[in-house]
Amino acid sequence: MTYKEIEINQDIVLRPRLLTGDRPTGKLHLGHYVGSLLNRVALQKIYDTYIIIADVQALTDHFDHPLHIVANVIEVAKDYLSVGIDPHFSTIFIQSQIPEIHELATYYLNLVSLARLERNPTLKAEIQDKGYDRSLPMGFLCYPIHQAADITIFQASCVPVGEDQIPMIEQANEIVRRFNRTYNTQCLKICQAHLSSTSRLVGIDGVAKASKSLGNAIFLSDTPDIIKEKVFQMYTDPLHVRVTDPGRVEGNVVFSYLDAFCQDSQKEELEAWKAHYRKGGLGDTFLKTALNDILQERFAPIREKRNALRDGEVWEIIKEGTKRARHVAQCTMEEVRKAMGLRYF
Amino acid sequence: MTYKEIEINQDIVLRPRLLTGDRPTGKLHLGHYVGSLLNRVALQKIYDTYIIIADVQALTDHFDHPLHIVANVIEVAKDYLSVGIDPHFSTIFIQSQIPEIHELATYYLNLVSLARLERNPTLKAEIQDKGYDRSLPMGFLCYPIHQAADITIFQASCVPVGEDQIPMIEQANEIVRRFNRTYNTQCLKICQAHLSSTSRLVGIDGVAKASKSLGNAIFLSDTPDIIKEKVFQMYTDPLHVRVTDPGRVEGNVVFSYLDAFCQDSQKEELEAWKAHYRKGGLGDTFLKTALNDILQERFAPIREKRNALRDGEVWEIIKEGTKRARHVAQCTMEEVRKAMGLRYF
Repeated sequence: MTYKEIEINQDIVLRPRLLTGDRPTGKLHLGHYVGSLLNRVALQKIYDTYIIIADVQALTDHFDHPLHIVANVIEVAKDYLSVGIDPHFSTIFIQSQIPEIHELATYYLNLVSLARLERNPTLKAEIQDKGYDRSLPMGFLCYPIHQAADITIFQASCVPVGEDQIPMIEQANEIVRRFNRTYNTQCLKICQAHLSSTSRLVGIDGVAKASKSLGNAIFLSDTPDIIKEKVFQMYTDPLHVRVTDPGRVEGNVVFSYLDAFCQDSQKEELEAWKAHYRKGGLGDTFLKTALNDILQERFAPIREKRNALRDGEVWEIIKEGTKRARHVAQCTMEEVRKAMGLRYF
Repeated sequence: MTYKEIEINQDIVLRPRLLTGDRPTGKLHLGHYVGSLLNRVALQKIYDTYIIIADVQALTDHFDHPLHIVANVIEVAKDYLSVGIDPHFSTIFIQSQIPEIHELATYYLNLVSLARLERNPTLKAEIQDKGYDRSLPMGFLCYPIHQAADITIFQASCVPVGEDQIPMIEQANEIVRRFNRTYNTQCLKICQAHLSSTSRLVGIDGVAKASKSLGNAIFLSDTPDIIKEKVFQMYTDPLHVRVTDPGRVEGNVVFSYLDAFCQDSQKEELEAWKAHYRKGGLGDTFLKTALNDILQERFAPIREKRNALRDGEVWEIIKEGTKRARHVAQCTMEEVRKAMGLRYF
């Protein structure tokens, strides 16, 4: 089915719209898989899904490494396609190629005060994490406003987020209400946060959530050897020295991954392993071998699908998606300009 | 001569480029005339002149009155044409119709810190003047960055400014240097401030400079009656009660205007009036009548030219200028994207 056919098929086009996406700062990993990708694969049948590869947002704190960002765009797209994101249902596009987003964000800048931005708890935490102080770049400070433009230019009614991102949705909706009130229009839509039920996957070091930048993640594109190596590096319970020692299940990375990746049919066996481990007598090597088997089986077809993708075909999908997304963005911007009276010729 | 002919005529196209413009918050007045318009008329023969009608910038502190801004675009353009700005030499265009400016400004946001912006003395003074405190809109805070995009997207090497605007040029050049260094390019050009030699024209109330917002200005489009009325309202010397009293020339609005608008041939007579006024015996009415005559004579042909302009013809000039300006902006943005590596397809 091509995009043209989708446009004719009203049933599909009239699905409510969902916006989601990633900053192309690296390949995607198992944390993304359980935290968002699986969810997107399910939601794309219900929602008219728009997936933004947010290179412009990535540049707000990687502005001096644009080539790294640019190079990861196709990697992220390949990750999407390999896990089952289907371009017939999901529009994958590149943020920088939709200049209308910047235009809309420029008008939004007038509707948000510095004080309001500085109160945004998500942004506050991120600024602290990144150690920005007086050096805070304006692009980073303004990114919640640009994100509001991303969401609203596509008229998305649903945005899947983690709990920590709720202030971003509130910020976007505040802008929508203020814009619609100021310009006496209904052209912008309020969106709903779609909270993910999955808790975040911990990194193999057990210290923090799995993250590209911390180097503690298993990537969707990792080879079988690398997966095995990372599984066997996983943090377990430092007090579980001998096999016969009682071990802790909570905070044990191997069990976190087993919880996340065991099939339902294996859950009963997993509970038995947990009891055995707590009591003592079950070795880390046994568990790591079991986890490795599960991950190898789960991710082999994804990796194979990923390896089979030709660059040209992936670029074609991104190009088509970007064209489609731009059309939507242009229509919204036309409405926005009309509402503001900014049409001269 | 049409634009096409200009493009063929290399002599004209290769002139260095100048960027200037106004926020369309109202019609232009005699302060603009002596402070910038006369200068532009002279410079357009030397520089490839681009004149931006900055509606987007005007919205940063008038976002809730867009129709007022939009309505003044043609008024400002008529003022330009009536004083002798010639569309064969000057490209008059509307900022909001060049979305590439917003795109460029978005990338510039990454190159300027909040602390740096807050140190900008011009911006600091304006924020104080406008009484923004915690309510400071991000659009207003970011306007020096957007102004840097205005200047640089047109590769302007010359920007006529008042002394108080020099920090804006410094800010723009700082961004250019940082961009060129970060992305290892020479695609952006440093610009020079072209300082106006004329001091600012005071308002008819003598309190502050002539300004649209203070309602103390004589507009280029004012009728003869209104000009006369405003001249006779002018603040002179409160201690010059009787004609025979000695009067002050300094700080006397009528003399400020006589200084600004007397022809060279009248300068000797003006000096005699000043001496007479200082000594006592020269009435305000005499001086105001003389000033009125001078202004009526000077601005009658400008007003007549203005009244003869048809809206359709003015819109056509703006449309052509905007098309031409957009082409330049698109070429620069293409270079910018190339330098950043943001070209995918």
